[in-house]
Amino acid sequence: MKKILIVGGVTGGASAAARLRRLNEEDEIILFERSEHTGCAGCGLPYYIGGVIEERRKLLQTVSGLAKRYRLDIRCGSEVLSINRDDKSITVREKETGETYEESYDKLVLSPGSRPTVPDLPGMDEAENAFTLKDVQDADVLKKALMTLTPKHAVVVGGGFGGLAMAENLQRLGLTVTIVEKKRQVVGAFDFEMAQILHRELNVHGVGLVLDDGVSRFENKGKTLVLESGRTLDCDLSILTMGVKPESGLAQRAGLRVSEAGYVVTTQTYAALDADLLTPVDGIYAIGDVVQVQNFVDKQPDAAGLAGPATRQGRVLADHLAGLPTVNNGLQRTSILKIFGKTAATTGNNVVRLKKMGISYQEVHAHRLCHADNYPGASLIDLKLIYDPKTLKILGAQAVGKEGVDKRIDVISTAMRLGATIRNLACLELCYAPPYSTVKDPVNILGTIAGNISEGVYKTIPWDEIEGVVTDGGFLLDVMPPEEFDKGHISGAVNIELDCLRERLDELPQERGLPLYICSGTGQRAYTAVRLLRGCGYNNLYLLSGGYATYCDGTYQPNA
Amino acid sequence: MKKILIVGGVTGGASAAARLRRLNEEDEIILFERSEHTGCAGCGLPYYIGGVIEERRKLLQTVSGLAKRYRLDIRCGSEVLSINRDDKSITVREKETGETYEESYDKLVLSPGSRPTVPDLPGMDEAENAFTLKDVQDADVLKKALMTLTPKHAVVVGGGFGGLAMAENLQRLGLTVTIVEKKRQVVGAFDFEMAQILHRELNVHGVGLVLDDGVSRFENKGKTLVLESGRTLDCDLSILTMGVKPESGLAQRAGLRVSEAGYVVTTQTYAALDADLLTPVDGIYAIGDVVQVQNFVDKQPDAAGLAGPATRQGRVLADHLAGLPTVNNGLQRTSILKIFGKTAATTGNNVVRLKKMGISYQEVHAHRLCHADNYPGASLIDLKLIYDPKTLKILGAQAVGKEGVDKRIDVISTAMRLGATIRNLACLELCYAPPYSTVKDPVNILGTIAGNISEGVYKTIPWDEIEGVVTDGGFLLDVMPPEEFDKGHISGAVNIELDCLRERLDELPQERGLPLYICSGTGQRAYTAVRLLRGCGYNNLYLLSGGYATYCDGTYQPNA
Repeated sequence: MKKILIVGGVTGGASAAARLRRLNEEDEIILFERSEHTGCAGCGLPYYIGGVIEERRKLLQTVSGLAKRYRLDIRCGSEVLSINRDDKSITVREKETGETYEESYDKLVLSPGSRPTVPDLPGMDEAENAFTLKDVQDADVLKKALMTLTPKHAVVVGGGFGGLAMAENLQRLGLTVTIVEKKRQVVGAFDFEMAQILHRELNVHGVGLVLDDGVSRFENKGKTLVLESGRTLDCDLSILTMGVKPESGLAQRAGLRVSEAGYVVTTQTYAALDADLLTPVDGIYAIGDVVQVQNFVDKQPDAAGLAGPATRQGRVLADHLAGLPTVNNGLQRTSILKIFGKTAATTGNNVVRLKKMGISYQEVHAHRLCHADNYPGASLIDLKLIYDPKTLKILGAQAVGKEGVDKRIDVISTAMRLGATIRNLACLELCYAPPYSTVKDPVNILGTIAGNISEGVYKTIPWDEIEGVVTDGGFLLDVMPPEEFDKGHISGAVNIELDCLRERLDELPQERGLPLYICSGTGQRAYTAVRLLRGCGYNNLYLLSGGYATYCDGTYQPNA
Repeated sequence: MKKILIVGGVTGGASAAARLRRLNEEDEIILFERSEHTGCAGCGLPYYIGGVIEERRKLLQTVSGLAKRYRLDIRCGSEVLSINRDDKSITVREKETGETYEESYDKLVLSPGSRPTVPDLPGMDEAENAFTLKDVQDADVLKKALMTLTPKHAVVVGGGFGGLAMAENLQRLGLTVTIVEKKRQVVGAFDFEMAQILHRELNVHGVGLVLDDGVSRFENKGKTLVLESGRTLDCDLSILTMGVKPESGLAQRAGLRVSEAGYVVTTQTYAALDADLLTPVDGIYAIGDVVQVQNFVDKQPDAAGLAGPATRQGRVLADHLAGLPTVNNGLQRTSILKIFGKTAATTGNNVVRLKKMGISYQEVHAHRLCHADNYPGASLIDLKLIYDPKTLKILGAQAVGKEGVDKRIDVISTAMRLGATIRNLACLELCYAPPYSTVKDPVNILGTIAGNISEGVYKTIPWDEIEGVVTDGGFLLDVMPPEEFDKGHISGAVNIELDCLRERLDELPQERGLPLYICSGTGQRAYTAVRLLRGCGYNNLYLLSGGYATYCDGTYQPNA
């Protein structure tokens, strides 16, 4: 019989506790939770604010249920103050009484999670209309404020996952909303041209975007935000969603190794398999948002802040403690968000991270229907696939669209996790009937496009380089029908419709070896043109990745 | 320069022609199509009848567009009568003029597809109200008949994919519909208990089901169907959807090898990679519905009748003819159908086929929400996973539900194609946010349940064996809350609620080694009970797979 203490009862901690009990009736399991509740569904909070999730209790797992079913000693309202490594105990303070006591352990599991980053800005102390949203208590406070302040205009500071969800839900309540984001784009998980699709969606739904700018101070009791650019924004309410920080203070004070960014560093001396959840101190384990994990693609340190990985870590840890074999292959960063009519999802690494890590990549863009054109309701999905041009292994993918986005990213995530190449993607046998997909699923198409590129018949040029090429005198051929071309095209492009290309070859530069750049609406017709031109002897062909559609995404001008 | 003739312009043939041209500007490509059109979207036909697809042209690819873009010589209304292997030519008859001519080839691609099976039953000749639906011409005829006959009651003969789609769409037009199916279930791709969910859905929407019975003759000019059981059904209209037969007459007459079931047998002397599309005769290739392919799971002969594989085969063949490396790993049987509010999808082999092939398997059932409970609109998905109990490799999966079914089967199909085990499923990092999934996705859960079983702590018992066990005196423990138990349970079950189990162990047989059968609503609580009982020394535990929910599915009584 072991005595196992778990610090933190949300996600990872709750998952570990339940699995530990299932595997062992004997162990004593005590779970310490600082707040009043365990298992709060953090991702649901903005929807609760917006009234999409109507019942507060739906955000909570009842403690008594968990405690009874799994015979757990759950102590809510209990803050763990310190770890006393020498005598293997912790010091706990009961919040209600203020009393402290010690509790000994055989095994100690740290799952304290993270807390919102709140900057210390001038004027913030007096800004009673500025809120954060990390737990149910925060939600209660914000709900009340929305009633009493009856705000008309809100500013959301920070354009991450949480910020976007807040913007949508505040808008749902009838507020006008402006997002202020320090980087040039929202949601850093996406590459710029993909995030731009979200920018457009936000603007279309009336949400203003102030990018490349941050809040420097609060004035007028929080009713005026002064930005770093000097610009001011008036608001009745502001929500600070500027990311989260790991709650690693306890671990740090106990002398556990903590990374520069504040994550608990887990040992690499154990087998790589479960490296993600063990600290170097025997008997102490860490899981969830607080730990530094290994990135699946580049094998470098990373951090998740995601419920799925935290839950899995809880289970893996329980298995490890029970002596069962465990597997934990690192963090893939699969994530998803809903913003108004769009869903955006991603898995693996984006180009930003790959560049930072010095990993070479090839990217592919596609714009495909979520299901057969002839079945009602077909809408476009904008997709991006990133792969290793040498091994052809998938490095990441991103998608934004109205329907079927989660499916495509889940399929690619699965393929990636199993070591698939782009060739595997092309041959996947996925569900096809008109309401669900096209005969070749968009995922097949991504694999096919990448396969075409890998045949070496042509190269791609990204959306942000094509203007420069044309300016420098490059020949850009647009093969769309003239009526499409007239609606919009890249300045300097020469229009020869695909179906007439064979007859109008004399209008192209005759020197077969000179670079020729080819564009169409989404890249599909351009590809057919590329093959045709190759068949006619042209051998230095560049296809504009994702066509005019991706170019338009990339060059979109967001407005406030 | 080669001269390539393609017989059949739908799906596989069209796909091969386009890719062939993309890879080669020089070749002469002639495509012969018996009907007036190429690229008819067969799967869309029932929806066109039902008015979901409104425009007829949406079912067709325009021939002229394809012909111009890919410089193809497309000859519609042209029937290929024979292959003259000695002089490498074919004989073609122009349907309009009745004239015949010969056309020589370097390479001949057969993609003739399949045709509906129409039995030769007494009285059929006079049944002017009996129809089939294979192509746009059939659809035109049926649409007209629906106008002129103004039928009230229809009988759909055959409960396959096509039959169900027809039933739904006729119902949409206001007809009452009865399905007559010779087997004891509709859609043979699903195992019985999963098909039963479709039976219930059909009944709920007013579609009658006559199972285990076939039509023996037509009487009263087709207005009365006499069944094999002697029962009679009156109807104003009948649709015969009794499966399809490969159009292999041409191949057969040319002396190509054809299987007993009528599929063109492809050579195994070539590398296994492209075995699926080559006939043993040099210069003649076959693709699509007409060929016998290799089953991905059991490596035995199989046939698809699916658009996806046919399209891929077209591409693979073109690559092969161009000297590019090709991959074709066999048929996985991934398919999907929509029936009223439900989607049903499957991949891999079902238990029926595995049993036939003598392959040992373990099955797992789960009933999980498509997305987080706290986000509106969460509905249940009924899932089944089948895997090899030794290698733990996935052999197949089936799912039925309202939302998110296609995603889960696509993910499992991808995992399967890449050789995943159940352990891989458990660790997949899939998209999670409340509108899309649960923290552990249903696919993770299937992998987790299978993993739990593989730990050897308990065994499962299927829904169709539990009654016999109880009759023979076995102890069946139902751990649902009493109020749930009272709503419905398996006869003879003893109810002890999970959360009281620890305190009421004395109500169980005390002999730890005797078999103990445990049941709950979906199997989830039963699993927790199993772990608890194991912890208390019980070591011969059986969990009812899928719980009471799967038992109810399996024992449902369909009605006509």
